[in-house]
Amino acid sequence: MPLPIDFYFDFSSPYSYLAAEKIDALAARFGREVSWRPILLGAVFQHYNTTSLVKQPGQGDYALRDMAREARFLGVPFTMPSRFPVPTQAAARAFYWLQEDDVAVAKQFALAVFRAFYVEDKDISSPQVVLDIAAAQGIDRAALDAAIHGAEAKERLKRETEAAIAMGLFGAPWMVVDGEPFWGADRLPQLEKWLEAGGF
Amino acid sequence: MPLPIDFYFDFSSPYSYLAAEKIDALAARFGREVSWRPILLGAVFQHYNTTSLVKQPGQGDYALRDMAREARFLGVPFTMPSRFPVPTQAAARAFYWLQEDDVAVAKQFALAVFRAFYVEDKDISSPQVVLDIAAAQGIDRAALDAAIHGAEAKERLKRETEAAIAMGLFGAPWMVVDGEPFWGADRLPQLEKWLEAGGF
Repeated sequence: MPLPIDFYFDFSSPYSYLAAEKIDALAARFGREVSWRPILLGAVFQHYNTTSLVKQPGQGDYALRDMAREARFLGVPFTMPSRFPVPTQAAARAFYWLQEDDVAVAKQFALAVFRAFYVEDKDISSPQVVLDIAAAQGIDRAALDAAIHGAEAKERLKRETEAAIAMGLFGAPWMVVDGEPFWGADRLPQLEKWLEAGGF
Repeated sequence: MPLPIDFYFDFSSPYSYLAAEKIDALAARFGREVSWRPILLGAVFQHYNTTSLVKQPGQGDYALRDMAREARFLGVPFTMPSRFPVPTQAAARAFYWLQEDDVAVAKQFALAVFRAFYVEDKDISSPQVVLDIAAAQGIDRAALDAAIHGAEAKERLKRETEAAIAMGLFGAPWMVVDGEPFWGADRLPQLEKWLEAGGF
């Protein structure tokens, strides 16, 4: 049984959204599962004392153009959210809690969060918005509300983010196939070739 | 007559080398010429107070892995030079001087410099090495020697680099198609689609 592909992402990261729309179908073509792992990119940037691409000096305009162009290139609907970047603790904690019961439900929820942000321009930093998204998918709103405010979910997300940094992650999306790291939605073609050929 | 594609690069930039091996053939498939424009990435990084990818905190190991993998992905021979990065004034000045007489000769010289650095591990920061490469191509060594030490070549390179920064360039390779900027060898597939569809 081949190892799952690890897929690290932040719900506020545009290229994470683009990869999220593609990664499971890509992996499935090679009989692979994907293990989704939301992390907090803010903590990663803090660790390395860096910033997001759009805040790099002189790079913001190009970054915005590239995000929208890459989305069109991949055929994924995309509108730059009016609030960006946003904190994603609520969505990430919800994901891990949902995943304990049902991985498929957690992934559908994650895609719904991404689309709420990048298609509908909803403020996914709001726990209420996150709960609305979950409720629309038939998830128990009160139970999820309790979970995302609990110590366990908070601790889990912190632990996942720290483990990702310790492993070498410095950006998102970050995919790992049999120990080989791929950074960025633009590395999906290489990841595909890697799966196809068992490395190259 | 369609506009030429502008191709900005630094001889010390690995991804510039990879793009250089591909860009003319790609453009030719769509009836386009490519205008090659070496610049000094060091001046660009100084302008933005940034550094090369391999010097970004925590990113060096991944960058080295990615460069070699991207080269294999594109089918281009690549060995990380033992001295890296290196100053590229001599090669860049030589290019502009050669280009005044014969664009094809200048491009062949540029590819030879790239290959000397990324295949043969030669120190292309050395004017003598640059002159050796040129001489092996039948270029007048003494005339080129005089040119690369002259004020005109120095001024030309400075002007090209400043113009590139003023235009918005912050990294290399940087390609511009009908006003649309593409940064990175990994954007060649998007550039190709852009040429094919006249934008997307």
